[in-house]
Amino acid sequence: FRKKQIPEEELVGKILAGNKTALGRAITLVESHQQDHLERAQKVIEACLPHAQRSVRIGITGVPGVGKSTFIEAFGTYLVSKGKKVAVLAVDPSSSVTHGSIMGDKTRMEKLVTMENAFIRPSPSGDSLGGVAQKTRESIVLCEAAGFDVLLIETVGVGQSETTVHSMTDFFLLLKLAGAGDELQGIKRGIIEMADLIVINKADGENQKAARDARLEFKRALNLYPPRESRWQPQVLLSSAINHQGIPEVWEEIMNYLELVQANGFFEANRHEQNKFWMLQTINEHLKKSFYQHPEIKKELQVQLKAIEQKKTSPFAAAKHLIKLWNEV
Amino acid sequence: FRKKQIPEEELVGKILAGNKTALGRAITLVESHQQDHLERAQKVIEACLPHAQRSVRIGITGVPGVGKSTFIEAFGTYLVSKGKKVAVLAVDPSSSVTHGSIMGDKTRMEKLVTMENAFIRPSPSGDSLGGVAQKTRESIVLCEAAGFDVLLIETVGVGQSETTVHSMTDFFLLLKLAGAGDELQGIKRGIIEMADLIVINKADGENQKAARDARLEFKRALNLYPPRESRWQPQVLLSSAINHQGIPEVWEEIMNYLELVQANGFFEANRHEQNKFWMLQTINEHLKKSFYQHPEIKKELQVQLKAIEQKKTSPFAAAKHLIKLWNEV
Repeated sequence: FRKKQIPEEELVGKILAGNKTALGRAITLVESHQQDHLERAQKVIEACLPHAQRSVRIGITGVPGVGKSTFIEAFGTYLVSKGKKVAVLAVDPSSSVTHGSIMGDKTRMEKLVTMENAFIRPSPSGDSLGGVAQKTRESIVLCEAAGFDVLLIETVGVGQSETTVHSMTDFFLLLKLAGAGDELQGIKRGIIEMADLIVINKADGENQKAARDARLEFKRALNLYPPRESRWQPQVLLSSAINHQGIPEVWEEIMNYLELVQANGFFEANRHEQNKFWMLQTINEHLKKSFYQHPEIKKELQVQLKAIEQKKTSPFAAAKHLIKLWNEV
Repeated sequence: FRKKQIPEEELVGKILAGNKTALGRAITLVESHQQDHLERAQKVIEACLPHAQRSVRIGITGVPGVGKSTFIEAFGTYLVSKGKKVAVLAVDPSSSVTHGSIMGDKTRMEKLVTMENAFIRPSPSGDSLGGVAQKTRESIVLCEAAGFDVLLIETVGVGQSETTVHSMTDFFLLLKLAGAGDELQGIKRGIIEMADLIVINKADGENQKAARDARLEFKRALNLYPPRESRWQPQVLLSSAINHQGIPEVWEEIMNYLELVQANGFFEANRHEQNKFWMLQTINEHLKKSFYQHPEIKKELQVQLKAIEQKKTSPFAAAKHLIKLWNEV
């Protein structure tokens, strides 16, 4: 049994009409490992591009257990109730071919998943963060063309994936838990520097005092950082996503941010920088790939590594030798 | 007036005999921006490579004001008194063509600079950290060939330069000051993760209590990190470099480290990894340079950026277009 292949024009037409099934199919093409699928995907993306309407792209991160899915469920349903069309994407380089990690989440977004104006898509699977990221970035264009005007890009709070999501979003939200003792320990400084808003979730019941303390501590920490290029001063808010508390305040804060950065030009400048970054990134990946995957280079690389180990050559002379070979093959 | 050009063979012979003037001249060739100098430099390095004797390469970092020069003066003279030959190099991407930044330091290393068994060289000047780093790494080979067996590679405590120095050294020493209040604030987590030893300097006079407190705080922080690949457990020591206090203990700690990592194989494995890293780094830099500096690519890159800005193309389609052009030119 094979799905009937829909012509690209038809797919594009349906996407632009807001058809979620067509959107899902197009993303499947983007995520495919088959060359003909990828070529079809590129055609669809290019046709969608001029129609990708203005949206706000919000990155959301937080370690497992912070209540990310519950927060997105509460935040997403709130946004839909305000008339927004909300797409939830994810960047999770650890996700396997079975789309394991965020599928469980979908069951925890039980209300959002049934809403007409919401679209939830698990993280693409892929061998590298770079690959996953590129696919997500292409899916963003498709979601925007389908009329989704708030994009929530979720990521797990480990490794480089935050930086990646930060590089494709307009606003970066860090979810934290209170009461874990010394709040600033174990948090990467870089993440705080990226956060436009810190939300301390599960600020309910017995956690309330700890959450308020954590809020003060984070506010103090944020004050130590130099002013940002966006001129935005990040805040710290409390939420209890499970009780739908603190959610409107988060959206209000994001709107304040958008008002500021759209007025001072940072919004457009930042998007342009991001596009440039992604173009250069794609080129650099390609340059490396074509070099290191060339069979003759591959072979000679091992020879040179051996020679370095035996002090017969230096890393620089070995590099020079390989580049010379590259120019000849 | 031009310096007489010494044949490479003569230069190599003198370097291997430990002649510091010849070593200085060879490093000048490495640091030159003239193509013929660079070619001569490569010949000298290749001839020196088999003779580069076993050394220990120690990275030293710390923010301005921590007493880095005074520490290196005290540490270097101590090592010379123990029969070592000590070379001091620096990686400072901010240093200008006038070799500004570390020249002042040389006057603060007034005893070390006069010692027969010490060699001090300011940071090479260069447009990029990558360029500065490559030159320093080549100079390391020359110093080792000249018989220097302890190499101190100094860097300023800002930006990426620590990571760079870490990637070319066997042992990484972080100098800190006590009494600045919350010691862990404002220190990059990554730097602590790289440090094999933290030395709290200026632990004298009124600072003594604060220094002891800081020591405890850093020890506690270091304990929170997972075990390292080297299996080494980093310590925190106190010093008063200006009074030559705490210096032998630092060297003893480094010797303990070397004993461990030479026995468990990490020393060699790490050097091999570093060499591999530097080879790949050199290749990647070259690939990017030849792409982005090609006149036709340069021109078309601007066209594509404009098209992205006007939403006429996507970053990925633009990249694809440029790569296609690259394969044709």
